[in-house]
Amino acid sequence: MIRFNNDYNRGAHPAILEALAETNTTSYGGYGQDEWCEGAAAAIRSELGGADTEIHFLVGGTQVNYTVIAAALRPYESVVCADTAHIQVHETGAVENSGHKIETVPNVDGKLTAEAVRGIAEAYRVSTIPEHITEPKFVFLSMPSEYGTIYRLDELCALRTVCDEYGLYLYVDGARMAYGLGAADSDVTLADLAALCDAFTIGGTKCGALFGEALVLKNPALRRHFRSFMKQNGALLAKGWLLGLQFATLFENGRYFELGRRADALAMRLKAACEAKGLPLYMPNSTNQQFVVLTDAQKAALARDFIFEEEGQVPDGRSIVRFCTSWANTDEEVDALCRAIAAL
Amino acid sequence: MIRFNNDYNRGAHPAILEALAETNTTSYGGYGQDEWCEGAAAAIRSELGGADTEIHFLVGGTQVNYTVIAAALRPYESVVCADTAHIQVHETGAVENSGHKIETVPNVDGKLTAEAVRGIAEAYRVSTIPEHITEPKFVFLSMPSEYGTIYRLDELCALRTVCDEYGLYLYVDGARMAYGLGAADSDVTLADLAALCDAFTIGGTKCGALFGEALVLKNPALRRHFRSFMKQNGALLAKGWLLGLQFATLFENGRYFELGRRADALAMRLKAACEAKGLPLYMPNSTNQQFVVLTDAQKAALARDFIFEEEGQVPDGRSIVRFCTSWANTDEEVDALCRAIAAL
Amino acid sequence: MIRFNNDYNRGAHPAILEALAETNTTSYGGYGQDEWCEGAAAAIRSELGGADTEIHFLVGGTQVNYTVIAAALRPYESVVCADTAHIQVHETGAVENSGHKIETVPNVDGKLTAEAVRGIAEAYRVSTIPEHITEPKFVFLSMPSEYGTIYRLDELCALRTVCDEYGLYLYVDGARMAYGLGAADSDVTLADLAALCDAFTIGGTKCGALFGEALVLKNPALRRHFRSFMKQNGALLAKGWLLGLQFATLFENGRYFELGRRADALAMRLKAACEAKGLPLYMPNSTNQQFVVLTDAQKAALARDFIFEEEGQVPDGRSIVRFCTSWANTDEEVDALCRAIAAL
Amino acid sequence: MIRFNNDYNRGAHPAILEALAETNTTSYGGYGQDEWCEGAAAAIRSELGGADTEIHFLVGGTQVNYTVIAAALRPYESVVCADTAHIQVHETGAVENSGHKIETVPNVDGKLTAEAVRGIAEAYRVSTIPEHITEPKFVFLSMPSEYGTIYRLDELCALRTVCDEYGLYLYVDGARMAYGLGAADSDVTLADLAALCDAFTIGGTKCGALFGEALVLKNPALRRHFRSFMKQNGALLAKGWLLGLQFATLFENGRYFELGRRADALAMRLKAACEAKGLPLYMPNSTNQQFVVLTDAQKAALARDFIFEEEGQVPDGRSIVRFCTSWANTDEEVDALCRAIAAL
Repeated sequence: MIRFNNDYNRGAHPAILEALAETNTTSYGGYGQDEWCEGAAAAIRSELGGADTEIHFLVGGTQVNYTVIAAALRPYESVVCADTAHIQVHETGAVENSGHKIETVPNVDGKLTAEAVRGIAEAYRVSTIPEHITEPKFVFLSMPSEYGTIYRLDELCALRTVCDEYGLYLYVDGARMAYGLGAADSDVTLADLAALCDAFTIGGTKCGALFGEALVLKNPALRRHFRSFMKQNGALLAKGWLLGLQFATLFENGRYFELGRRADALAMRLKAACEAKGLPLYMPNSTNQQFVVLTDAQKAALARDFIFEEEGQVPDGRSIVRFCTSWANTDEEVDALCRAIAAL
Repeated sequence: MIRFNNDYNRGAHPAILEALAETNTTSYGGYGQDEWCEGAAAAIRSELGGADTEIHFLVGGTQVNYTVIAAALRPYESVVCADTAHIQVHETGAVENSGHKIETVPNVDGKLTAEAVRGIAEAYRVSTIPEHITEPKFVFLSMPSEYGTIYRLDELCALRTVCDEYGLYLYVDGARMAYGLGAADSDVTLADLAALCDAFTIGGTKCGALFGEALVLKNPALRRHFRSFMKQNGALLAKGWLLGLQFATLFENGRYFELGRRADALAMRLKAACEAKGLPLYMPNSTNQQFVVLTDAQKAALARDFIFEEEGQVPDGRSIVRFCTSWANTDEEVDALCRAIAAL
Repeated sequence: MIRFNNDYNRGAHPAILEALAETNTTSYGGYGQDEWCEGAAAAIRSELGGADTEIHFLVGGTQVNYTVIAAALRPYESVVCADTAHIQVHETGAVENSGHKIETVPNVDGKLTAEAVRGIAEAYRVSTIPEHITEPKFVFLSMPSEYGTIYRLDELCALRTVCDEYGLYLYVDGARMAYGLGAADSDVTLADLAALCDAFTIGGTKCGALFGEALVLKNPALRRHFRSFMKQNGALLAKGWLLGLQFATLFENGRYFELGRRADALAMRLKAACEAKGLPLYMPNSTNQQFVVLTDAQKAALARDFIFEEEGQVPDGRSIVRFCTSWANTDEEVDALCRAIAAL
Repeated sequence: MIRFNNDYNRGAHPAILEALAETNTTSYGGYGQDEWCEGAAAAIRSELGGADTEIHFLVGGTQVNYTVIAAALRPYESVVCADTAHIQVHETGAVENSGHKIETVPNVDGKLTAEAVRGIAEAYRVSTIPEHITEPKFVFLSMPSEYGTIYRLDELCALRTVCDEYGLYLYVDGARMAYGLGAADSDVTLADLAALCDAFTIGGTKCGALFGEALVLKNPALRRHFRSFMKQNGALLAKGWLLGLQFATLFENGRYFELGRRADALAMRLKAACEAKGLPLYMPNSTNQQFVVLTDAQKAALARDFIFEEEGQVPDGRSIVRFCTSWANTDEEVDALCRAIAAL
């Protein structure tokens, strides 16, 4: 069986394991105050176009999302996101558990639009009873989105404009950032994100690391006591250098970007195979997650050799399934899946 | 410089790095549902004297403590612990951040006593206005304690008796469990803990792993929806097998116990060196943390070659410092420190 | 100016002020443990068809809603309600502030449907990753709804059936219960609610009292330590007899029901006046809140002598406004408004 | 039976009931935005020596305490108070339920000392691992204290000095403010509190009102969105004018101060009776709560005609009991108790 069900089913890029082995007997300072974390932050910062930032390393995506939100918001402030956002649908109410309301708007191609954010922000601004409603303050989006689609630079700029107009924080969950940046049609860079966002993450877990998310804090308001928030939320890894070491390795010689581009290219081969076979794509995109509509017979055929994920149904009852490629897939694995699709 | 400041300043036991390398290209199911986690749980369970338990693997100590407490308590229930307990003094209010009050009692040799727990529980039982106070429900202690002292089996039995009498949960934070079990004068086993506790942890981060804490849930009331609590609190590692693999390796052929015994033995050499030199021990114990009272001159002398931690002062102004040994220390490192102490 | 903007703009039924005056120098036990609260609970219970219930008296509606939810839910459990529900749109995120997610479904005529609840509950039941999502557990609805519409007995029975099937709590916010029960076309009684709900409230603030909501807890699971939840959430009034006295007075000789019927009848006169004039009703109903679509000129004309509330706009830009009657309105006040409508 | 068990066992000053009756048919704006609240705020402000303040009216003491703390603190910040503080011992963990840690210090005569606050604040300032501990930020004290003792002006000035030095908020819970100010030996005025505190309350419930606490916010940082915090915490009374009306009446012609002085004078008669009889006072004070040490026989004798509260025991097993006078006691009631004490 070959797993295409997600992009976090194997270990790490070999260079990371090598670095771990080389440093295993060296002792380091604890809690992220070490030379590896410094080096990783510097390596990331060199991609950020000179933006003044503070960079932290956390273990997981749910953790980083709710910790940033806890640090950003007062109790009467809320998060705005698409109805498909990961924090809304797949993090077990972690944001609400930390006390904050999420206000959702309908997604457009899996994405949040500036117009929708403006609608919510303006409704609060003109409310005659603002003390009876929460204040929208934190705009959350994922890049790429939960459906693999990517934000174009002009879309992000439009979101920034609305955020500036209403005093909102703009945050990008980049758990799959390598795959967003690596898309052939992406016109967004990390420097753009650093210019436009108050904070964003650069995912490691799904993009070549054993685990870890880098958090880039640009807005100084979000930095205050951030390490206290990390500790309070169980997000301050004792052996923090393990995170620094991984990100330093990923950002060595553009490795992170290369891993993303390669996985996206593999996904485009799957996409082409589906199109050649006439399989409908549920939400066409250019990144590493491909959502395909299959009949039960097609599902059964592919399930003989491959593991993939069910994501729901289209109205006629056929299934939407997800195939993920990742930095770890071999050409042979993708070849095999393409052949199986062609043979349906 | 040689670090004796803590027991989490180096990587992992070499066998763990080897296992990581061997499995790096294998794909696994996510979120702790994989064969490594199953194997690790089985290996741990084989030490538990047949107790019926559910075992989970989490990344860090603060995280596991507040997640278990969140799962155990209703909002009107509180935690009882010693005034020196880690959750009270060094976890940035993580327990209160999850909504629960901590009620402290004075420690005796760094430990919580059954009598003190009884005092708080009885005060609640006889209160005529119970709705105005929180109900003590969760008894927290560390093994070994934050000052390196260990609970004797009869002390744990006495705590269990009080917990039974008042319907309290008994929980042991075993972040340094290997060093507690490894003490020459310890009469407690993991099977004893499984028999006496509602839940306890077996620490990996400080005891030979890169990171990770195994959580043993015995009381069925604490198991319900525990994975939901993990996810909500950012404690469900995507690549969960990384945790399983580490604990499986640590519990292979008694390695975990051996690592603990060895570090304790190294600590006893430090203790002997201090005693030989007449340096007062702040809270004498038989585990891997040795607390020593030093003058400023003595501190300065030792600080030339060694890193250690300041822990406060005794009334005459001298410092209390902590020297930690760990599974990773070499005999040579300890020799060097012993010589330096002798030369003071 | 005559206020029709809400149903809480005047004091209390005169009988309540008389009772306050008569008892002013009598001393009572505190925190709701007094003869008035006992008497009020008995009077309410006599309307509940023999259901076994626990009855508490709280000060306000937001308070009682989030306190019941805090008492009912564990952190991984969520609330299901219509997108128009008061807890979702007008309580400043109080439910989320207590840690719980709200999941909304589209309203139908301002109401929650059994089908929508089933949809959410079934999605959770069949989820392959339940630990990544919150468990729907608490069904919230208002009677009458925020748009004045009422649930028919068969609708409540259908909701109960779904709740039984999925193990959900059914809760009715009855802040305007008198007006719901008093509607000419209502076929629901308090005894029906006691039979069908796990808990519900009987509103005082909007229905003849100075302040206060009676909370009827039927499900024993919701009763456990409820007074602790009240105290912890600031909802245990020191002079609790003030609440008991008010509800005892309201439930004397059917006064509560009579006040509701009368206000509904006054509202029906407003409705008839609107219909006679051809003013569109935004969401036609038979209770004390009438939502009317007005042009700017019509609004301006009525605003000369009356205070009413803006509730949004219909697509063509006309305003939706709300006129509320209450137990306190005189016939003359309603006459005046009807004449003004006729003169538009 | 005559109740001396607390100071909230009867209704309100007759002038309040008269004002309620007079205004019962008048309609008002909701949620505290009405002429009575404005008037009450103005009346209170006239006692504050010209301090720039924002004044809100809330229903109860627990509610106002945790709501102010929620508004003041970020999640990593903590409250400092005496071990006997009401929020620590009698509010069911309401502060922790809102996510904040309380750090206690030993009381001195029931009071918090500047030295103790300095100790905690300095420990945080010099900590080398501040992210592992909460930041002390909010100093809580009660005036009079939970044991009836009062803070002298120089004590409050010393607390202010420490708060300024460390950037802490100083808050006074004045649930019994009338009795604190009314003590013959008090040298503190409301203007002093307005000059020295960031926020404080003026209690109504125990001091002549049916219910209600006035909250004076001086520090602008505490005012931001305070009404949102009130609504979110169930503390925004729909018919807010009921609170304004009560405080306007209490602050008419110095009535509030007079009620306090009179109850204190009555308490001094009880104190004298105890002293004459040789009954030990547990914590001698000059306000309306008198704590007396009684044998079981003495308790039984007094319990025949009077209700009072048990507060614990002295080491020899005798009971500490509390007798409270209030604005509502008659001279005859106090005479009767004095006679009974004399007859022991």
